[in-house]
Parts: sequence; C-alpha cells; structure tokens
Amino acid sequence: MNVNGRHYRTVWMENDVVKLIDQTRLPQEFRIHDCRNLAETCEAISAMIVRGAPAIGATACYGMAQAVMAGIPVDEAVRKLSATRPTAHDLFDAVSYFKKYYDGKSPAATAEDYANTSIERCRKIGEYGERLVKNNSRVLTHCNAGWLGCVDYGTATAPLYVARQKGRKFFVWVDETRPRLQGAKLTAWELMQEGIQHAVIADNAAGYFMQKGEIDLVIVGADRIAANGDVANKIGTYEKAVLARENNIPFYVAAPASTFDVRAKTGRDIKIEERSEDEIHYIEKTRITPEKSKARNPGFDITPMKYITGIITEEGILNPWEKPESLL
Amino acid sequence: MNVNGRHYRTVWMENDVVKLIDQTRLPQEFRIHDCRNLAETCEAISAMIVRGAPAIGATACYGMAQAVMAGIPVDEAVRKLSATRPTAHDLFDAVSYFKKYYDGKSPAATAEDYANTSIERCRKIGEYGERLVKNNSRVLTHCNAGWLGCVDYGTATAPLYVARQKGRKFFVWVDETRPRLQGAKLTAWELMQEGIQHAVIADNAAGYFMQKGEIDLVIVGADRIAANGDVANKIGTYEKAVLARENNIPFYVAAPASTFDVRAKTGRDIKIEERSEDEIHYIEKTRITPEKSKARNPGFDITPMKYITGIITEEGILNPWEKPESLL
Repeated sequence: MNVNGRHYRTVWMENDVVKLIDQTRLPQEFRIHDCRNLAETCEAISAMIVRGAPAIGATACYGMAQAVMAGIPVDEAVRKLSATRPTAHDLFDAVSYFKKYYDGKSPAATAEDYANTSIERCRKIGEYGERLVKNNSRVLTHCNAGWLGCVDYGTATAPLYVARQKGRKFFVWVDETRPRLQGAKLTAWELMQEGIQHAVIADNAAGYFMQKGEIDLVIVGADRIAANGDVANKIGTYEKAVLARENNIPFYVAAPASTFDVRAKTGRDIKIEERSEDEIHYIEKTRITPEKSKARNPGFDITPMKYITGIITEEGILNPWEKPESLL
Repeated sequence: MNVNGRHYRTVWMENDVVKLIDQTRLPQEFRIHDCRNLAETCEAISAMIVRGAPAIGATACYGMAQAVMAGIPVDEAVRKLSATRPTAHDLFDAVSYFKKYYDGKSPAATAEDYANTSIERCRKIGEYGERLVKNNSRVLTHCNAGWLGCVDYGTATAPLYVARQKGRKFFVWVDETRPRLQGAKLTAWELMQEGIQHAVIADNAAGYFMQKGEIDLVIVGADRIAANGDVANKIGTYEKAVLARENNIPFYVAAPASTFDVRAKTGRDIKIEERSEDEIHYIEKTRITPEKSKARNPGFDITPMKYITGIITEEGILNPWEKPESLL
C-alpha cells in the first residue's frame, strides 16, 4: 500500500535486515524500524512495533530466515520467536512453515514466499469483496483490520482498496475503537495515505449515523470464527452488528480461512481475553478516571452468526453458517 | 451528596459569594470555585466550571440574587447571565423565576427556593425510581446525569442514591462516554464519593456485558423529550437502548417534567448539535488521529420511544407514550 505516494509492505527484508513500519509511532510519525538480527526481530514483535496476526506471522518468518542466514540453529530461532507473543497463532504457523519449506531453498526466498502467500490471501478477499463496495457507498469499519495488521491489503480493508483500484469512489466511517484507538490511529492513517475519504467517529456515534441512513455497509475483521459462524473480534463489534441489523444494513466479516477454528463449536467456546484496567483508566498517559475507581476491559466480544450477512474469505463470500471448502 | 464524607450541593451561596464545585478539575482535583460578583458568576458559567442544565439554572438564579444584592439593575443582570450559554433553557427559566418571585422577598431566599425546588424534583425522581434498583442489581448508566449536573441527587443517578439511602446494595456500570468522557470523569467520581461499587467501561463494552447477562437495568438522563416520547440524550444513548432491547433489559430515562418539549412532535423535530471535530481528534491535548483526517461529532442522538421501558419523572414513572400530568 502507499505511504507518501510510495508503495510499502508492513514488513519486508533487505539483505539480512528485517524492516518494519513502526506502528507504535503512528499516526504522528512514519518510521521504518530496522531489525539487524534475530534478537532485534524478537524484541520488535514483543514491543508491538508490529501488530496484527498476519503481520506478526510474516515478521516471524523473516526472523527465521535472518537467523538461519546468521548460522543460528533452526530450533533455537523457533524457540526464541515463539516466546515473543505466546498467543499469536499465526506466529507458530509461520515458523512451522519455514521449518517445513526452507530446506533446499534460500532462507530469504522461503520467507518471501510466506509473505507473498499472506498477501495473496488478502488480495483475494479484496477481489471477492470489492463488489459490495458500490460507487458512492458509505462503509463503516471497526478497529484496524487493515494492511498494517497484515503484509498488504488488510482483511476488512481489502475490498475497499480493490474497489479503489477499480476506480470506485466511496466514503469510510472509522470507529475510533476505544480503548486502544486503533481506528483513529491506524485505520484513519491508512485511508488517508490511500486518499480515501473518511471520517473518524466516537464509537458511540455509529448507531446515530446508521439510524440517519448514512451507512450502507459494515465490514469488520475477525480474530477467530467458531464452527457455527459466531465471530470473535475487537470489543464493540457485537454492538455494531446488532445496530446494523436493527437498521437493515449488511454486516460483513472479512478474514482468511485460517481464522476459522473448528474446534470451537460456537462463540461460547472462545475465551475472551480481559486486558489491563489501565487501558481504560489512562489515555496517552493521562488518568481519566478517579484514582480509586475500578474498570473492566474485555478485549474482544462474540458476534453471534445471526447478525452476520456474510464472511468474505480468499475462497469466496460465504454464508455465515458455511465453512471454507479448504477446511471440509 | 457526599464529598470526602461531607455533604455538598453543586452550587450554593454564602453571604454574597456564589460557590461552585469546579467540574473542569474533576476527577483529579476537588476544588470549590468562588464567584464574588456577577461578572465572576457569568464567567464561571461560560467557562463550564458548572455544567448540566439544572445546575446552570440554579447558578444563574444565585447570580441574579448576587447582582440585586450588589445594586445591579435586574434587567442588566438578566442580560448578562443570558449571554453566557445561549442554548441553556434552564438558564432562561431560572432568571425568569427570579424576576417573577423576588419582589418583596430577600434575593438570596428567592434563589434558595429555586435551588430547593430543583433538588426536590430530583429527589422525587429518586423516590419513584428507587424501586427499580433491587438488591444486588447491576445498573448501567451513560454520560453524567448525576448530581454534579443538578443541584443534588441528579436525574439518572437519583434512583441509585435513594436506593442506597434505603440500604440497598447494587453495582453500577459506567460508560466512559466518549468524546467528552463525562462517565469516566464525573459519574465515576460521584459514585466513588458515595461509596457505590462501580466499574468504568469503554462504550464498546456495554453490549458485551449485556450479552453476558451482567446488566439488569439501564438508566440514562435526557436533554429533551418529544411529545411522542422520543428522547434526545448524549450520543451513544440510542446504541445502548437498542442493545438493551435486544437483550431484554429494561431501559429507563430519568428526567424532570420540564424536559418534555411538546412543540417537538417526534424526535425528528429535535435538532442535533454537531460539536467541534477536535473533541474526536484530541484527548487531553494529544492528537489521536492523523493530522489530515476528518472527524464527525454529533453531540446527541434520538432514542425512539419504542426502545424505552419508562420515563421516571417527579410525577411518577410514565409509559413512554405518556406525558406528565402537569403538562396536560
């Protein structure tokens, strides 16, 4: 995708340096972070310089290549990378992929293949989803399921970027997405770089604009999808889904087939992470609540399948009760 | 209500000094702001040291008394106070009340009567509403319709405070209420001072806790109520109302009869104020969005009557299609 008119991926490798867009500094500052060795790559993942499951996966795969090129034993590299973000499923996928395929190939080419496959999935999500983004439509998205969280294109944003490539004009409503404000900070920044018209709104205002008839379509990402089509995603997704149905607005989830977790029969089987209270108490280091007040901070919620119009995958747009063919 | 164990009103008069709890410094600092003359009282209203329609009304009435005691002509005081917050309906009510009733009475006693009437309305809202707040119930509120916005008791909070006086124990969920965070800053502070158990949540999380069965009741305030029962209130109220109905949770509005505006037939006749984009772009002086991104910031929304279980007024709990008897 474009930054200041130049094409970028979220992560790439030059010689033996893993390069990342530093997501902790956006939107104030665009900076490329260099990881010159495995230790620095591990540190960048831990410190959330890179975030978003597919982007973390690609970074880990480049980290494997970097390690092997520096003569570090494969198992040691696997161990170190796996310890950075213990719950990131794509990270384990990525190091397994590298172990399986690098034999006989150049390490860098192996990692590049992994990143390209990841991009291709997102691009296909975009190709299948773009027909939903009609000329002059007004699309709401929540959080950042954008290219910054992937290697390129993003998931929820992929249909937007492909529609844009096809010359369509549309407008995007961006939920700021408290508590971590990924909508205000990251999604708005991506859209601005791509020259896509948008407005950031308080999460409280999405319902208002739906009620006024100013939202035609909702597209969000997914962290995990249960076998019955229930979707776990960033906190607030459920609220927007209920409001969309109440206002007869199509509500789509965009995610690669790998997001389906068929071991979870329904959303009830997906454990919701409760994150630090401080994400509520503090905004940019200022305390906004009284010193002795408590807070609760669930990071994700479950949107029951009945609120979902369709799931946009790299294998096509599925009904929410369907699973991707590759999983059958 | 209580602050550090001592009883306070939001506004009162000592000799010829109008005293206000400085709401711009909460929750970090509790400070009483002295207005020693009419000019200082006008300035305090303009600068939002006091906010909330009933609290502004009482402050203006005390300002009238202060002016008359200082020998300022009544009409000059009316003019100056009316220019402070041109859209605050209660402010005009308050100065009219003073003009009508102060003749032959002490100016201070006239203002005191106005404030006491205002408190009595809120107390009655509490008396009628307290039966909804059962032992061990978990109540969600949005924004600050608390005693800080009134003279005492508040509107949405009055049933809580009266239930508390009757010895009931319950828990309050506090929507932080972006963009201005009145829930996190003011409602949480009030509840903490009263020793009422509570937790602040991102506005995105209210639906999650409803879905999990952890919210039994919602009570919000109102800025204006149309003749058909549609309610204008702080942005996000509509979202919570839709989610409450979806989860079969009673949704009550608490407001004095004066909030009804029978000239507005339905919510469509109520103009929604669109406030500065900067309330979205900046939190506590830090810019959270990209420099060139736009934002939209409606300050209020309309909750259609069909989502409302009842309206708690000083004349009793009404069905949403009913009007207070005093208006018939």
